[in-house]
Amino acid sequence: MFPLPQLDESSEEPIYRQLHEFIKQQILNGSLAPGQKIPPTRELAGQLGLNRATVAAAYEILESEGLVRGHVGRGSFVSGGQAHTGIAWEERFVPAARAEAPAPGGTPGISFASARPAQELFPIEEFRAACDEVIRGEDAAGILQLGSPFGYAPLRAWLLEQARSSGVAREGDDLLITNGCQQALDLLQRLLTQTGDTVLLEDPVFPGLKNLFASAGVRTVGVPVEPEGIDVEMAARLMAREKPRVLVVTPNFQNPTGATMGLTARQALLRAAREAGVVVVENDIYGELRYEGTGAASMKQLDETGDVVQLKSFSKLAFPGLRVGWAVGPRSAIARLAELKQLADLHSDQLSQAVLLRFAQTGRLESHRRRMLEAGAERLHAVIAACEKHLPPGSRFTRPQGGMNLWVRLPEPLDASELLSKAQAAGVSYLPGRYFAVSRHVPGSLRLSFAGLRPEAIEAGLAALGRVFTEELERARAARSAGLAPAIV
Amino acid sequence: MFPLPQLDESSEEPIYRQLHEFIKQQILNGSLAPGQKIPPTRELAGQLGLNRATVAAAYEILESEGLVRGHVGRGSFVSGGQAHTGIAWEERFVPAARAEAPAPGGTPGISFASARPAQELFPIEEFRAACDEVIRGEDAAGILQLGSPFGYAPLRAWLLEQARSSGVAREGDDLLITNGCQQALDLLQRLLTQTGDTVLLEDPVFPGLKNLFASAGVRTVGVPVEPEGIDVEMAARLMAREKPRVLVVTPNFQNPTGATMGLTARQALLRAAREAGVVVVENDIYGELRYEGTGAASMKQLDETGDVVQLKSFSKLAFPGLRVGWAVGPRSAIARLAELKQLADLHSDQLSQAVLLRFAQTGRLESHRRRMLEAGAERLHAVIAACEKHLPPGSRFTRPQGGMNLWVRLPEPLDASELLSKAQAAGVSYLPGRYFAVSRHVPGSLRLSFAGLRPEAIEAGLAALGRVFTEELERARAARSAGLAPAIV
Repeated sequence: MFPLPQLDESSEEPIYRQLHEFIKQQILNGSLAPGQKIPPTRELAGQLGLNRATVAAAYEILESEGLVRGHVGRGSFVSGGQAHTGIAWEERFVPAARAEAPAPGGTPGISFASARPAQELFPIEEFRAACDEVIRGEDAAGILQLGSPFGYAPLRAWLLEQARSSGVAREGDDLLITNGCQQALDLLQRLLTQTGDTVLLEDPVFPGLKNLFASAGVRTVGVPVEPEGIDVEMAARLMAREKPRVLVVTPNFQNPTGATMGLTARQALLRAAREAGVVVVENDIYGELRYEGTGAASMKQLDETGDVVQLKSFSKLAFPGLRVGWAVGPRSAIARLAELKQLADLHSDQLSQAVLLRFAQTGRLESHRRRMLEAGAERLHAVIAACEKHLPPGSRFTRPQGGMNLWVRLPEPLDASELLSKAQAAGVSYLPGRYFAVSRHVPGSLRLSFAGLRPEAIEAGLAALGRVFTEELERARAARSAGLAPAIV
Repeated sequence: MFPLPQLDESSEEPIYRQLHEFIKQQILNGSLAPGQKIPPTRELAGQLGLNRATVAAAYEILESEGLVRGHVGRGSFVSGGQAHTGIAWEERFVPAARAEAPAPGGTPGISFASARPAQELFPIEEFRAACDEVIRGEDAAGILQLGSPFGYAPLRAWLLEQARSSGVAREGDDLLITNGCQQALDLLQRLLTQTGDTVLLEDPVFPGLKNLFASAGVRTVGVPVEPEGIDVEMAARLMAREKPRVLVVTPNFQNPTGATMGLTARQALLRAAREAGVVVVENDIYGELRYEGTGAASMKQLDETGDVVQLKSFSKLAFPGLRVGWAVGPRSAIARLAELKQLADLHSDQLSQAVLLRFAQTGRLESHRRRMLEAGAERLHAVIAACEKHLPPGSRFTRPQGGMNLWVRLPEPLDASELLSKAQAAGVSYLPGRYFAVSRHVPGSLRLSFAGLRPEAIEAGLAALGRVFTEELERARAARSAGLAPAIV
């Protein structure tokens, strides 16, 4: 944070001198650190209600004193302090859009904040058995040796066979193992987009996806997600108008909304993408987690061109701490992704690949999945019932049939960001909608990740949230009806 | 490969028509695939000895027929065949310098081609024990759950404590766990360089490093590596002249040369980098593998500014199939690297991190290191003795005191690339110098990676190589003394 001065217009000291003196003191007392960026003149002038030339004059004196250094195209930086023998690191970082991202890791109390599987459901004994079998197996030394960028060969062969027999992989397709879906998205970003390109994303979408493209200087355009998934007509219009290079879509239990696309919508979206010549990346990380109803075929299965790239992962079903996902797509694209994978980190960890293969081949994964589906169904019913019971009137929420998340819109004027600290004080956390916004932000929106919580915790958490939201809503309405400005919450 | 036509200048058919007809047939018979790039007019004109306008005329007709499509800034591509319903993938890939890289994985026979530890020395029983202890431990469920981008907290704390107590990490330093050193280099590339920037690398250097920067559009400038390591005076001159953003240096047992820098050279290089304001990345992946003699302190230990970023890994010492390395550097840089790490793949695999921590904390890593050093010393002596015995007169080679590689220069006119197929026919492989060249290439150079081979295999392999090289040298000299042009080998 750049500190703002109190400037005195009635003083005899000119404003630019006051500003100069203030910033100088901040540098000398260490509030502004060596290498720290100072705001552009235009920005600071706007914040202080000053003429830009006034700010520029203050900066010029600072520069003449050696306290601030300008750097063409990267702005101005504090050069004072002990930095004269070292690197001013902030100056060295490539400028990149750094979007706000939620802090990783858990939060105390009842947390609806993280889309992770329930840890208490981890089949630890089954995992241990698979691990034992692998480390006592004949291939142990081979697993510990350097491997292939395409992935551990037996796992890759097994996954490809699965993909072929289910109609996901065609003749011309190949498969690359990645460190979860996130790395597949990162490699695709590098292969298919560069600074100034445009991609189409669902809006809202999980921060790891939009920030990935934004940090590479790629423009992200959002397509609204409705309870039935991405708005296909809007997607078609945006593909024609914005000429995106890639569309990333999560047809099953989208993160954060939980929305799922029907068969007709999937087919229409594929048609629109084909007409516009846009590469479709299908993020199917939640596809195995359907708790009720029946789903449509995946985009990759429906695709007649063979051009869809489908991403999957063990992370949401089994053990996210083991970083194993995969991408299925046209052979030429997979070959290039493997080259980038090798430059990125040589290959994925082989111990986890071997253990997950064993876990899957011995039927343990399928047994675990059945238990996860039972537990997921319970939790889904619990969260929907609790939303109905506790959210204030006027709230809306999605009703997914699987996955880990649902999406809430609180009635106006509630702002989920502003209410978060009150919720946390009541022992409950969630992620406000602003982390997920691509092109539009609805202040009342928030994500509830329910899959990691027991039904009792879901009920208790939503009861607490309901109290916080309802109380705030009543206060705002009382204030409004009394003719006062709405309370700042 | 783009096929070249036989054009008939004596024909009545104009040359541009002949060329058009030839390319059209190639497209229609499938020799040129949909999406394949066709050479720029300038290039094809040069190859065929034609006027550029002639080639352009042929392309224009192909384009009017819909067989070829131009793409601003990306060149022209075959659009025919069945591609009209799909994506022409080659058109979609971001243009990037794709340097030639050796195929990953082993080669049959006696292979000096891969810098990997000896698999038969893997302490499999010790590894199993560490693995058992981890999966039966209290934290098993936590290890399987989503983790932190900084790495598995207990491993990170342990590594940081080691780095602090050895004087590697200072007050202002922090540590990030990566998927081996390669990922640390990739993240640093993204953080510190962008298209058009320059980096200084050792020349020769391992392909994974130079290709990483080249693929991001970063210019790589090589500093010659002598047997005593990087040429410091040249490095200083190049830093002043080329204004690189980063210098990557491997002071211990550099890959591919095995060269090691002395204390004075390290200090001089640090001084030069500090004066030029260049970020120094110290790749210390081989630092633990000293078989004889005594080494100097690391650059990070010697650095007085605290700005050096040091990379280390378990891969060369223990199990490269487990992808665990780490970076130590200034806190602000590590924090930004962790943000990029999270976008790249969320975090490193936690099972391997936990097992390697256990392996290290229980003293098993140190016992294994001692065995590796004994075996390494034997292998080092074997490779040096075998080089002395078998390489043809006039050959030079480095004499490292550790690591995995040494560097050979064969006498002229031998070309290590051209001789490789003969060597392979004799059952031995190596990597020719061209894979490692940054700014200059010496045709007679090659890398011998000896650490993965038993002394008997080293002796047998070099005996076979010596026969191939000596025979070729004698043939070339006989041809030259007979007044003939040197044989094409």
